Amino acid sequence: MNPSNVRSRLTRDFPPNRRYLIGVSGGRDSIALLHWLINLDYKKLIVCHLNHQLRARSSDADARFVEKLAKKYQVDFELGAANVRVLANKKKMSIETAAREARYSFFAKAAKRRRCHTTFLAHHADDLVETFLLNLIRGTGTTGLAAMPDVSTRRVDNVDLTIVRPFLSVWRTEIDDYVDEHRLKFREDASNKNLGPMRNRARNRIIPYLEKIIGRNVRQNIWRTAIIAADEENWIVNAVPDSTNPDLLVSKLRALPVALQRRAILKWLRAQNISEVGFEVIERVRSLVDREASIAKVNLPQDRHVRRRAGKIFVE
Amino acid sequence: MNPSNVRSRLTRDFPPNRRYLIGVSGGRDSIALLHWLINLDYKKLIVCHLNHQLRARSSDADARFVEKLAKKYQVDFELGAANVRVLANKKKMSIETAAREARYSFFAKAAKRRRCHTTFLAHHADDLVETFLLNLIRGTGTTGLAAMPDVSTRRVDNVDLTIVRPFLSVWRTEIDDYVDEHRLKFREDASNKNLGPMRNRARNRIIPYLEKIIGRNVRQNIWRTAIIAADEENWIVNAVPDSTNPDLLVSKLRALPVALQRRAILKWLRAQNISEVGFEVIERVRSLVDREASIAKVNLPQDRHVRRRAGKIFVE
Repeated sequence: MNPSNVRSRLTRDFPPNRRYLIGVSGGRDSIALLHWLINLDYKKLIVCHLNHQLRARSSDADARFVEKLAKKYQVDFELGAANVRVLANKKKMSIETAAREARYSFFAKAAKRRRCHTTFLAHHADDLVETFLLNLIRGTGTTGLAAMPDVSTRRVDNVDLTIVRPFLSVWRTEIDDYVDEHRLKFREDASNKNLGPMRNRARNRIIPYLEKIIGRNVRQNIWRTAIIAADEENWIVNAVPDSTNPDLLVSKLRALPVALQRRAILKWLRAQNISEVGFEVIERVRSLVDREASIAKVNLPQDRHVRRRAGKIFVE
Repeated sequence: MNPSNVRSRLTRDFPPNRRYLIGVSGGRDSIALLHWLINLDYKKLIVCHLNHQLRARSSDADARFVEKLAKKYQVDFELGAANVRVLANKKKMSIETAAREARYSFFAKAAKRRRCHTTFLAHHADDLVETFLLNLIRGTGTTGLAAMPDVSTRRVDNVDLTIVRPFLSVWRTEIDDYVDEHRLKFREDASNKNLGPMRNRARNRIIPYLEKIIGRNVRQNIWRTAIIAADEENWIVNAVPDSTNPDLLVSKLRALPVALQRRAILKWLRAQNISEVGFEVIERVRSLVDREASIAKVNLPQDRHVRRRAGKIFVE
């Protein structure tokens, strides 16, 4: 692990003498990232742990484990708690999605309180590949195929977070070797407790199967594709007109190429706080643009609707 | 099969009273397409069959079978022959790729002789999904993820071919039903004889496995993703500066966003008759742009090279 170009880019763009948040579940990956950063002389880290309350006692034990570790490394510690199961039910989300949303909310709070808006996360190359495959299988279109970026910004609860993933080009086996080499202790379940059944299947069955059948470096190829898709995504998103307006003008939308119509609709829906819409919904909204469209209403999750009236498309 | 919107779009854009080529291997898919078009009153079809000479006698039997069928339907027939194995060895290509190139050359010849530049091909939705997965696994980047288009143009041997694939949104099972319903005869091996081992694995093992594990409509989702990717591809390709110049200016390339650098290199390499380059080669050529690049030469297949000298990148 620890290829010198990963290290030198990181220390150049995010100097070790500044303050950063770091998300630490207590699992293998985040424990390795924390250790690696400490070794690179990142001394002002703030270890952030969210108790997801999914496994009662062992969730509490995870939190205590991470707190102790922060003490050992002499860095600050932020603890949060969220009842992810309740949140998932309330918002009709999967546990995995609800857990992610809860973590980002928690990071946003910590960022505000600590006046420190940059967060390190331990996602690695295998995470990226799994996410790619899951999004492909779920049919999220090319937006979902773009790799999670190594550096990105994300607005959560009115806080602009900068998310940095130093391990995005590092493979799980390299992290394993690092953990073994440094004899790091970690909580066995901590990093897997929020995995959905689909992600588990991608990790433990689909990718190993593809490697067995194809006999090439499938992971590496998917990783590259995702990285390219991310660069293109970046470029396309910048080309999509902004959409702070609550209405979408049908005539403007119609004038865009198909690829941009889809992006514009997605961007607009997100701005209206409609997230997690799939290809189906976007295509139905897009069909409202059709001059001969007989349908003027598209159903959204949570009893909301997109309607077309008087040359405008809006959510109600 | 035979959804009315597929039919009405086709007959609108390609009126049945004109002349068209149609590629017919004698296999299930092309037999169904031929029958379907004849039923839609496409009377001036020219059935084109290339004998790939891969299976000796049975290849000849395929050719005779297709010739008879053309007679039965009272449409014209064009027969070609190519020694695909020799071609593959000579050009260091896979059998699948060599067979495809041979077919396009044959279509170009037929198009010239018959003064008819539009060719119908029987690729269907499953072909599209398999191609997507293979390209993903092979790591061709997002360029390879774009679905083959339902209508496209292709310049082959100085002939501009228009390729039309009416069945691209039709599934193999629908074609099977159609063939059964109309009791069509076909040559069992004809359509599969040029399948590479990789494509066979994608068709017969990987996709069924994904469907079993995920338990959703994996095919449908991949199909959609590929269609979206194609629309975006279309749009991106149009944004890439043209490259008829044999040299690529380093300063110009450097000024482009990363996504477009890759496309510009790919487009330029293709214009220099360097095809089938993977992500690796493109990234190495792209590294020549780096100010601090110590390498000034990148190896290409068939003993050719890309070099950087005096602010220019060229092939030699």
